[in-house]
Amino acid sequence: MHDIRELAERLRNFAVARDWEQFHTPKNLAMALAGEAGELLAEFQWLTPEEAAGIMADPQAARQVRSEIADVFIYLTRLADVLGVDLLGSAADKLEENERRYDAATYRGSRRKAPALAEKNPLGER
Amino acid sequence: MHDIRELAERLRNFAVARDWEQFHTPKNLAMALAGEAGELLAEFQWLTPEEAAGIMADPQAARQVRSEIADVFIYLTRLADVLGVDLLGSAADKLEENERRYDAATYRGSRRKAPALAEKNPLGER
Amino acid sequence: MHDIRELAERLRNFAVARDWEQFHTPKNLAMALAGEAGELLAEFQWLTPEEAAGIMADPQAARQVRSEIADVFIYLTRLADVLGVDLLGSAADKLEENERRYDAATYRGSRRKAPALAEKNPLGER
Amino acid sequence: MHDIRELAERLRNFAVARDWEQFHTPKNLAMALAGEAGELLAEFQWLTPEEAAGIMADPQAARQVRSEIADVFIYLTRLADVLGVDLLGSAADKLEENERRYDAATYRGSRRKAPALAEKNPLGER
Repeated sequence: MHDIRELAERLRNFAVARDWEQFHTPKNLAMALAGEAGELLAEFQWLTPEEAAGIMADPQAARQVRSEIADVFIYLTRLADVLGVDLLGSAADKLEENERRYDAATYRGSRRKAPALAEKNPLGER
Repeated sequence: MHDIRELAERLRNFAVARDWEQFHTPKNLAMALAGEAGELLAEFQWLTPEEAAGIMADPQAARQVRSEIADVFIYLTRLADVLGVDLLGSAADKLEENERRYDAATYRGSRRKAPALAEKNPLGER
Repeated sequence: MHDIRELAERLRNFAVARDWEQFHTPKNLAMALAGEAGELLAEFQWLTPEEAAGIMADPQAARQVRSEIADVFIYLTRLADVLGVDLLGSAADKLEENERRYDAATYRGSRRKAPALAEKNPLGER
Repeated sequence: MHDIRELAERLRNFAVARDWEQFHTPKNLAMALAGEAGELLAEFQWLTPEEAAGIMADPQAARQVRSEIADVFIYLTRLADVLGVDLLGSAADKLEENERRYDAATYRGSRRKAPALAEKNPLGER
């Protein structure tokens, strides 16, 4: 697999071959993505931070974690493809936004959330 | 942004510059990922399937969806980097597994879940 | 089972009898709750709205849905118990807040989100 | 608020008064529930276990946690009402099932997952 574009294309073909495009609506894919993120949580939920940090040293747990991460990535790629969203491009934009919002000096070692962006204020949105 | 590797590296630098590596444990990142998947859900939850399918035609909603997808992708990339998981490689493996489990003839147009893989049965796991 | 108080007590006893209180930290329980909410999503994700509305007519699906709802409720009750949160009291407070924010005349038939509460603005929080 | 029945009734009236029943389909409510579970995660995600355990000592964080727990409980109650699921009854059934699956002697202090129930095996489901 060379890149996200190739993954998106193979997922598209996978869906077409099974006539599953009818199920792959944005709403359904967002649900599947959140469901897989929940399964990923389940791999970590009863572990101490130390155990979680060392999870990849256990071959069976590592395989399980890799599998859940793959599921999340697969649904994310499929959703982005269906919506026409460029994953790398949107991540780059968001990272630049975060670099502006969380300047390194102010937020060094801090977990505080930055104030909402001005553009979001008018509607009081998250 | 050229590829996932570059994104992972920029996210690593972003965390280092803010001394945020202490917060970016696998457990915490899995939580952040699931939280962002939940915010993505919120963009679709009250829409009809038709409205959800056309969401990108509304510039404000489209910007919001792109932003939430970016957040999911960012935390997924960061988590995979921290755990040493190859996103494209694990997705390729999973896709091949799914191609075996869901042969196109049997599952054409069907939403049935395939039986659990044999290797998972001994522990009765998902 | 008479009420939430009895459920909370039985869950507490269940945890004590298995020496599981060490795992039932707020953070872990919040993760388990979100994981179960994800499993509940999975019951609905590939269904059309019509199919989802009729899900309880299928005995096997109904049993599955009931089981996932129970899991969410169990972890929610356990988390609230561990944190000392009164579920009914906090829901009553929130409902009253929502009655103020979403006055029936303005929001009739509308999916618009109300502006953030004034008290939340200073920190720009969700 | 006396009990879940009263909460369910008040939520039903709240929806009717705003003509929001059209949005409160099982699928949409399951999404909203998962979204709120994600917001609850966000309250804990960057905290150490110790900080998370003491979260209710901080009045602002406590208010936020209570509010997110209330949101989860509200959507759970609304979903159960729409589906005709008895929350306390289904939790009691599940608790009894868990008491059988996780006998105290075998699972004392253990995080192992019990084998899947026999009845679930035929379909290889979780």
